[in-house]
Amino acid sequence: MSVHTSQILSMLALLLLAGDRVPSAAAEPNVRRALFVVAEGVYNSELMAPYDVLQHSIFRDPNDYMETAIVSADGGPVVTFEGITVEAHFSYADAPRADVLVIPSTRGSMDADLANDAYMAWVNKAIAEAEWVITVCDGAFPLAATGALDGRVATTYPGDRERLEQMFPKVDVRHDVRLVVDGKYITSVGGGMSYEPAFWLVEHLYGPDHVAATARGLVWPWDLKTVPHLIVE
Amino acid sequence: MSVHTSQILSMLALLLLAGDRVPSAAAEPNVRRALFVVAEGVYNSELMAPYDVLQHSIFRDPNDYMETAIVSADGGPVVTFEGITVEAHFSYADAPRADVLVIPSTRGSMDADLANDAYMAWVNKAIAEAEWVITVCDGAFPLAATGALDGRVATTYPGDRERLEQMFPKVDVRHDVRLVVDGKYITSVGGGMSYEPAFWLVEHLYGPDHVAATARGLVWPWDLKTVPHLIVE
Repeated sequence: MSVHTSQILSMLALLLLAGDRVPSAAAEPNVRRALFVVAEGVYNSELMAPYDVLQHSIFRDPNDYMETAIVSADGGPVVTFEGITVEAHFSYADAPRADVLVIPSTRGSMDADLANDAYMAWVNKAIAEAEWVITVCDGAFPLAATGALDGRVATTYPGDRERLEQMFPKVDVRHDVRLVVDGKYITSVGGGMSYEPAFWLVEHLYGPDHVAATARGLVWPWDLKTVPHLIVE
Repeated sequence: MSVHTSQILSMLALLLLAGDRVPSAAAEPNVRRALFVVAEGVYNSELMAPYDVLQHSIFRDPNDYMETAIVSADGGPVVTFEGITVEAHFSYADAPRADVLVIPSTRGSMDADLANDAYMAWVNKAIAEAEWVITVCDGAFPLAATGALDGRVATTYPGDRERLEQMFPKVDVRHDVRLVVDGKYITSVGGGMSYEPAFWLVEHLYGPDHVAATARGLVWPWDLKTVPHLIVE
């Protein structure tokens, strides 16, 4: 090693010691990508509530957070069940890998979406690649239709639990909880409770201080002990 | 009156008696128009949560419900605080009268929106015309800026109550409740609790059965007794 090279290495060491003033490999933020797959008639609350919880993660820790985005078939807008036109960020063709996949319910979650080959193909691929999958309300139906819930415990919108059982008899559907975590699959009841699966994941990934700050920001009394839930170890 | 005219009147009377099979003036649905005024950086939850509660009213009673729509400055899209592009239905110029005006918080509710003459002019006019005004989170700031809350009780996002008091000393800002109704003004804390002011109004206008069905549909434990609130008689 020449003197010249060792001097360079000393400078590099000083730069690394300078910490937050100098960008370094160690300071690269850990960003997970959370993708929300939508179809026509997606429900407002089921899309927006978990979106808010995950998106707000950047305000709690700029070095460890989620980037959120919406995926539609052609990358164009969809009209929500309630009649709001919402733009997507990606199409099935150009969407990157989802670290966290969120499947909100749509008008067609129990029928039209399941018969939509392009939707199911993208969902299938995204589920296989994702670190975590959240379903909100009837988003459990497309997840179950891929077979990913076979032999697993899950839940869905209270009024549609019997239908989930009938359509997917290999899924152990729970009627007494709002939130189920089985492996990487987080299923939940939806509606105004659509915040809960995202709070659970934020607490699991980022810890109690982060989730408490996010819950305070969203004026939400998050406390897993008060949520009827089941976590399969 | 000729015989001919009296025959026609008899037929009309029969048609009216035929009730629901024949459209008549008496069967015209009672539709209230709920308009949500948005600006850049509107918060997802504060827009979507009350939107859902009010929009779902059509499924409870097709003869007595609300039509919901979004108003932006030019009728074009806005990007929400969380990064979702949402289309408006009306511009300030072409928006009809709001029976119910909803003011969700935006990134600029405490400063930029208040300095935006076009926004404040439309809000001022809509407040004066509306039967009811709901503010969600910091939507209380533009409402207070019009003077409409002078001498009234109100609340806002918990972290911004002191600022509301400082900026608008004529408003009696409450720190101990999530929901205040004073006259036609419904102010609320926002975040995940953004459903509450809309549930209150639905119960007030449409009664306990309607609100119970809507709450069940949205998996929300609506019960005013469990909500810290103040109603000024």
